[in-house]
Amino acid sequence: MNSLENSSNWIDRDSQVVWHGFTQMGSYGENNPVIAARGEGRYIFDTHGNKYLDAISSMWVITIGHAVDELNRALIDQAGKISHATMLGNGCDRTIELAEILAELVPMDSPRFLFASDGASAVEQAIKIAFQYWKNLSIGGHESFVALRGAYHGDTLGAMSVGDDGFYSGIFAPLRFPTVHCSDLYEMADYVLANSDSLAGAIIEPLVQAASGVLLNDALGVMSLASACKKTGVPLIVDEIATGFGRTGSMFASQEAGIRPDIMCLGKALTGGYLPMSATVVSEEIAQAFIGPDLSNKTLYHGHTFGGNALASALAIEHLKLLDTLDVLANVKERSIQLYDSLEVMSRQRPIVAQVRSRGLFGGIELDCDLAGDSLLARKVCAKAVEYGVMLRSIGPTVTTVPILTSTPEEIDRIVWTIGECIDQLSS
Amino acid sequence: MNSLENSSNWIDRDSQVVWHGFTQMGSYGENNPVIAARGEGRYIFDTHGNKYLDAISSMWVITIGHAVDELNRALIDQAGKISHATMLGNGCDRTIELAEILAELVPMDSPRFLFASDGASAVEQAIKIAFQYWKNLSIGGHESFVALRGAYHGDTLGAMSVGDDGFYSGIFAPLRFPTVHCSDLYEMADYVLANSDSLAGAIIEPLVQAASGVLLNDALGVMSLASACKKTGVPLIVDEIATGFGRTGSMFASQEAGIRPDIMCLGKALTGGYLPMSATVVSEEIAQAFIGPDLSNKTLYHGHTFGGNALASALAIEHLKLLDTLDVLANVKERSIQLYDSLEVMSRQRPIVAQVRSRGLFGGIELDCDLAGDSLLARKVCAKAVEYGVMLRSIGPTVTTVPILTSTPEEIDRIVWTIGECIDQLSS
Repeated sequence: MNSLENSSNWIDRDSQVVWHGFTQMGSYGENNPVIAARGEGRYIFDTHGNKYLDAISSMWVITIGHAVDELNRALIDQAGKISHATMLGNGCDRTIELAEILAELVPMDSPRFLFASDGASAVEQAIKIAFQYWKNLSIGGHESFVALRGAYHGDTLGAMSVGDDGFYSGIFAPLRFPTVHCSDLYEMADYVLANSDSLAGAIIEPLVQAASGVLLNDALGVMSLASACKKTGVPLIVDEIATGFGRTGSMFASQEAGIRPDIMCLGKALTGGYLPMSATVVSEEIAQAFIGPDLSNKTLYHGHTFGGNALASALAIEHLKLLDTLDVLANVKERSIQLYDSLEVMSRQRPIVAQVRSRGLFGGIELDCDLAGDSLLARKVCAKAVEYGVMLRSIGPTVTTVPILTSTPEEIDRIVWTIGECIDQLSS
Repeated sequence: MNSLENSSNWIDRDSQVVWHGFTQMGSYGENNPVIAARGEGRYIFDTHGNKYLDAISSMWVITIGHAVDELNRALIDQAGKISHATMLGNGCDRTIELAEILAELVPMDSPRFLFASDGASAVEQAIKIAFQYWKNLSIGGHESFVALRGAYHGDTLGAMSVGDDGFYSGIFAPLRFPTVHCSDLYEMADYVLANSDSLAGAIIEPLVQAASGVLLNDALGVMSLASACKKTGVPLIVDEIATGFGRTGSMFASQEAGIRPDIMCLGKALTGGYLPMSATVVSEEIAQAFIGPDLSNKTLYHGHTFGGNALASALAIEHLKLLDTLDVLANVKERSIQLYDSLEVMSRQRPIVAQVRSRGLFGGIELDCDLAGDSLLARKVCAKAVEYGVMLRSIGPTVTTVPILTSTPEEIDRIVWTIGECIDQLSS
């Protein structure tokens, strides 16, 4: 069997047993999937030994790199102690240490951390906490949520409910609760001011709506909304699952926008991208509303089995240390400017590029599919890039790149060059 | 500082930064929480070096034991290769191998595995797949779900919607979609036969409703429901998050009940309890309904970032090997009989015990709180047991024990003796 057959054999095996998220399994094998077998820094090696630049940070989670010695050592040390101990009514030293370190980093006073594993679960927790907060205060009427048009906050039904229609999610309308979606942050601020009596909470991704195709919001809009929430007492839920831990050039986008959320959702990069871990961060004021007699109805009866997992906690602690000692944010800031500038140049030379959007190390290259006469063009560009050894991801008409935070100038150049080259090849 | 002060110091630190799931944080410290620092086999050691028998398997997840050499080696080996590679449009060799091994074990033909991390996410996926299945077939009307009275399937809003009211979840009614709850499996079977045109799916935990306080169902009832589903074409969703991987004495409770589900939810013990990993398992027939053109609306647009995580996959593979080579199920069967018999004896001597329920290594000891004049009695029994070095967990009036699957006869005796002794001390 030659190596190409061997490689396609893995893809066949994969198609027969694995259902991939957000993937049409009928054409999975046709879009050049990379079957990862090994990682090293910013590179992934497939089962055949081919090397790829991970230009999507394995779906926006890898920060320092793959198989980093320090992170692996932290994992191995913790495994020798204990891998998992339940947080339900009990605790774990490593999880406490992680929460203490995070408490110093998040832009909130005396925050509390309710851990889960999937990011969507952190959003569900945020929704339920905001909703129950008003019940616990015995203040009626606060039962609805407001969010941004185009918003994406995860795939569980509560998270989908605050999310807007998209990815054909309209069919699930009978299972979703209604949410108001505003066209921008200023409209959302006005809505909060006018409807605070009916609102349980307001939810946004700050600065970058990531899964919506890298849509950008300005800091002033975020501040306007935060100000409206503060004025009315409506909890502001800030979903930093995608933006948190350096992606936009600050530890959290909320800091860049100059706001202090009431509730934050963290996930993705929390462990450096090695293990599932998410968290809902709650301000002192909101947490206090849940204090009452033992087993009373003031309690939040919500808890994911693996929340606060010891292995994930140990990794997260080491990851936060490395972000600091390696001064990763300084690199993000420099590479962000480079990414922005080179995307601009690349797009100016190509009428098929409708718009480029970037903030921090998030880049979105929206293609004019009508002009190209091919609604799948962005998808095909990403499949073609795999032949050049670069992993990208399309969202509708938009090619996205989300480079690992330690990327070099050469790697950023290579990503942008590859996108341009693949566009040229497919649209000429 | 003496050791007791040191220990309580960890609890104070914990209370200030961690919000524990299903826990009233105002009285967290008063219920003898164990702050885990180390594990060894079936024992957990707290920050002070005190040793506790983990008689709840760290919330029903640990199967072989804590810090088991073989599991740790599998984790370390995989960390040296790659910890995480995205499943969205791409694959990973270790995840494919895991799915292939699981495909041989689950009682389904040509199953597909859609991985997530939290158990609730696997339930959400099941709900959405059953719902979209009918849309993809262009068959109208199938939009509701039927479940069991007292059902618990997780805390996200979709999972809560198929769950019954409980844990004060009634307040979230405005955010949940309506579900019909039947009082037993026979009524549920009749409901399916009479209402198949409106049903998207039927969901149960087979044999044991775990988080509902270890409620038991008989295999015949499960078979009746499965037969009604087969007859009408309504997908049967079987939630084996708690029962899967040997807990009831079979690999899956569905096998004990003699059924083949259309959709299964797996979680908790999948990795041996070390890492978050869940999966929605889908039959060939249902998966086929999602095949269509690339990026079309036949696709399931749902995918959790860390689904199919490589570290979790490596652990799960080694865990499944150990369940086999150590013949763990044989031990579960023997210890189950012992647990059943000794709980019977313990309860006969104590009028305060209203009922004992056990199946496999699930045990529920429901106390007569009215007779005791103390609605918190079960909670206090569990706190008292910690002083005897045994970790239990109460659900309402019920003390539960869910021993690690490799427990010895002496350990089962010790658990039951401790429960009896703590009941006596608190109710005399």
